Amino acid sequence: MRENSLISWLQQLDLSGQNRSAKDVLHGIGDDAAVLRTSGDIVVTTDLICDGTHFKLEECTPRQIGRKAIAVNLSDIAAMAARPTAAFVSLLLPSSFTRSMTSELMLGLIDLASEFECSVAGGDTNVWQGKLVVNVVIIGKATNRGPLLRNGAQPGDVILVTGALGGSLAGHHLNFQPRVQEALQLHEKFLLHAGMDLSDGLAMDLARICQASGCGAEIHVESLPISSAVKQLSTSRDQQFKRALGDGEDFELLIAAPEDEAARIVSDQPLNIPITAVGHFLSGSNIWLNKAGNRWPLPHIGYEHGTSVQ
Amino acid sequence: MRENSLISWLQQLDLSGQNRSAKDVLHGIGDDAAVLRTSGDIVVTTDLICDGTHFKLEECTPRQIGRKAIAVNLSDIAAMAARPTAAFVSLLLPSSFTRSMTSELMLGLIDLASEFECSVAGGDTNVWQGKLVVNVVIIGKATNRGPLLRNGAQPGDVILVTGALGGSLAGHHLNFQPRVQEALQLHEKFLLHAGMDLSDGLAMDLARICQASGCGAEIHVESLPISSAVKQLSTSRDQQFKRALGDGEDFELLIAAPEDEAARIVSDQPLNIPITAVGHFLSGSNIWLNKAGNRWPLPHIGYEHGTSVQ
Repeated sequence: MRENSLISWLQQLDLSGQNRSAKDVLHGIGDDAAVLRTSGDIVVTTDLICDGTHFKLEECTPRQIGRKAIAVNLSDIAAMAARPTAAFVSLLLPSSFTRSMTSELMLGLIDLASEFECSVAGGDTNVWQGKLVVNVVIIGKATNRGPLLRNGAQPGDVILVTGALGGSLAGHHLNFQPRVQEALQLHEKFLLHAGMDLSDGLAMDLARICQASGCGAEIHVESLPISSAVKQLSTSRDQQFKRALGDGEDFELLIAAPEDEAARIVSDQPLNIPITAVGHFLSGSNIWLNKAGNRWPLPHIGYEHGTSVQ
Repeated sequence: MRENSLISWLQQLDLSGQNRSAKDVLHGIGDDAAVLRTSGDIVVTTDLICDGTHFKLEECTPRQIGRKAIAVNLSDIAAMAARPTAAFVSLLLPSSFTRSMTSELMLGLIDLASEFECSVAGGDTNVWQGKLVVNVVIIGKATNRGPLLRNGAQPGDVILVTGALGGSLAGHHLNFQPRVQEALQLHEKFLLHAGMDLSDGLAMDLARICQASGCGAEIHVESLPISSAVKQLSTSRDQQFKRALGDGEDFELLIAAPEDEAARIVSDQPLNIPITAVGHFLSGSNIWLNKAGNRWPLPHIGYEHGTSVQ
């Protein structure tokens, strides 16, 4: 469908209430830019997904692709412990993409956004001879406690992760639930020092939070929560640990909390999903794995999308 | 270059002051989301450009591509008569794209953004086997007079356009100056009813402002300001008019102003570029062309990027 028709179709969705129109969106789809009413700090994130790298068009439905495109961005808003407000969607459609495929993709996206009271307030649509590309931007609002950043972890803080890790390619990467509510709950009730979402694997993402915070860390390998997908894929415990550390697209939360606060969180288990202590932050810059008291440096594993550019 | 290296490189640009860090950006590149301090109404726009449709990689430099990617978005902020604050850039790089090509592209983008006190505050980078894609989002601030919308044109208002029209493919589409300052000046000094930027040609864009405002319009063909590129391309006056109406990517401003206000604007010529009255808005929904007192309906011409989706 051409851009003009897509805009009209989306405006219909607005009118019918299917694309939940957040009260902060003063003017949504249909002008050169959207107008949002804001106060205080806003958070902004953008993530692009494309056919062949983040999904395979022939192996999933347009609805799943739309869902994933917004879900990865909602996960970044969760990482900041913020509330999503408005999403902006750029589509680059292959010329073989039908009108119904386009609306299915948008519905997958809008349905998940609506669960979090986030509306699609604008975007851009193009058709080309290449493969499907979807870029999403989400604007969110920080809570009264401010955004949760990566740079606040301190030596002695406990490393917490939500859910279970690894094996995302078995299906989780298409149907994971962004941890928006969980992050808001934790941020409201407990003192957290730092946080991020796990998109490229615990090993690589922990290195990022350590770098931002100027500290090191130690992971207690045997305490890692292993996903059932990994348990089915690997019988060896070492293989399971390796996947829990290195597999990308968990989209769980990685949190740094002071020791007493972390102890309360782990004992209270305030979420509908498990939250587990998997190690602690250290002074210095090294990251260690610890298994049964033996310690060795964390190998450089993890998942960076795409290949290296020369 | 991998995402981690691109992030470090951009952080260096921040430190050196080359990527002008707007005071509203509390946390820029390097976290899961950027944090901006806002108050009042913000405007948000997004536009994607891709190789083969909006530029040809073999016919222009990476610096020109980066410049165009941000310029088309700055033009949308100009359309709202708002001030740009922060930009977010998603790159989808072909695997043949070198590190220096990537930094050239980003410098083209950052240099133009800096002219408007807009900083690159975040983004996403991926490498794939397909062609180059650049998506940009800009967040801007409305002025005290509020954002200039498409829906305020009234019958009797004069149609004004800045600059000259047509022939953009001759080079203008790669080096045009987004009319941000011009829009702010006009919006501050004069009463404007509606505005937008000309991206798909005057004929198609005028139809959009008419639809949004619930009115019709009449263009006085002989008053259209014709670009020198068009004058070189076409000797026939009728061909020149057709190009001025139908060529895409002028990125000039289209404004609706009350008759007395428009007369003041045209006589004052308050901008560094010409501003011209080219017709007026009417009641009803028809759009007419008028030449030497003869009137006929505006044909459906204009430029919509890409081909139709079934």
